[in-house]
Amino acid sequence: MKIVLIGGTGTIGKRVAAALAPGNELIIAGRNSGDIQVDIASAASIENMFRELVTVDACICTAGTGYYGDFHTMTQEHMMPGIGNKLLGQVNLVLIGKNYLSEGGSFTLTSGIAAEHPARNGATVAMLNGAVNSFVLAASQELKKDQRINVVSPGLVADSRERYGALFPGYNLAPMDKVANAYVLSVLGAVNGKILKVYA
Amino acid sequence: MKIVLIGGTGTIGKRVAAALAPGNELIIAGRNSGDIQVDIASAASIENMFRELVTVDACICTAGTGYYGDFHTMTQEHMMPGIGNKLLGQVNLVLIGKNYLSEGGSFTLTSGIAAEHPARNGATVAMLNGAVNSFVLAASQELKKDQRINVVSPGLVADSRERYGALFPGYNLAPMDKVANAYVLSVLGAVNGKILKVYA
Repeated sequence: MKIVLIGGTGTIGKRVAAALAPGNELIIAGRNSGDIQVDIASAASIENMFRELVTVDACICTAGTGYYGDFHTMTQEHMMPGIGNKLLGQVNLVLIGKNYLSEGGSFTLTSGIAAEHPARNGATVAMLNGAVNSFVLAASQELKKDQRINVVSPGLVADSRERYGALFPGYNLAPMDKVANAYVLSVLGAVNGKILKVYA
Repeated sequence: MKIVLIGGTGTIGKRVAAALAPGNELIIAGRNSGDIQVDIASAASIENMFRELVTVDACICTAGTGYYGDFHTMTQEHMMPGIGNKLLGQVNLVLIGKNYLSEGGSFTLTSGIAAEHPARNGATVAMLNGAVNSFVLAASQELKKDQRINVVSPGLVADSRERYGALFPGYNLAPMDKVANAYVLSVLGAVNGKILKVYA
């Protein structure tokens, strides 16, 4: 199976890469690293990536970030980069990528626990994650050629404990193998239109 | 109670207005109609409205639209107006309006059933509604001065049956009195951080 993994060098992405590399042709896409370059905030860059790939059997995105910060100084300007990146970046991977995805192929996007259980300072990320989840529910009904789409919604992932743990007091750690497994289920399983929650 | 209702001349808004007018100072805000003008797609316009109002005890938004159309020709350009309007418009009502909202005051936003049960052609609206829902969950944790926030998520409302019913085959009609009641609950009740679903 030919799989493109956007964000494959990140905290979650490298675990997904390790889980899916055996037996598959895995292509890591990143902004500055990886086998192929893409900036998901640019529809043109996404189109260029898929043109170069010609076709893929699975497209996974573990990239995308959003603003964390004080709610009381938060403005629209803090939200726009995440809207262009984590939200519309992932949406565009689907809207553009479906034309390059093989029959029976799959998309797997990434949202996060903030959609349901936002942490303090996480209003922007909550909004982005909720948007991605609902988009996937809709897109799963619309895709043709037996194409599927799911979204993995991780909690605070174990490998981020040192870097981000202090921002999420009381959040359980989501084990990396369970997180990676959700992506494997989406790519190799038959599930469609699911929000695969891996909160702990 | 001094209540500003943005979109108060719309299908849902006028029912909410009728339910809340008795015993309250109800100010209808609209782009071109109503007691005061506001374009929620503009942060400056929102700021101007609140400056003119000086303070309010409740801010309700029943305005905001998003693109419905064929998924396979949908692009980012179709999504941007709804992002600026139904999503960031409502977000900005909160981010800006909280400084003008009285102690114990409330925000009531509007999402919709598409967040959970999108209809065909509704991927953009699903995305917007999911985003608004999750933003409200986060915002409810952050507001100070006992301010509250909820979101009403209506199904296909009864008064839209003629206009939109054909787009939602198999969707039950949400009775207008139940829809209006959800806004009343949010404004006059004690609920906070709730997605008030009125699907039927």
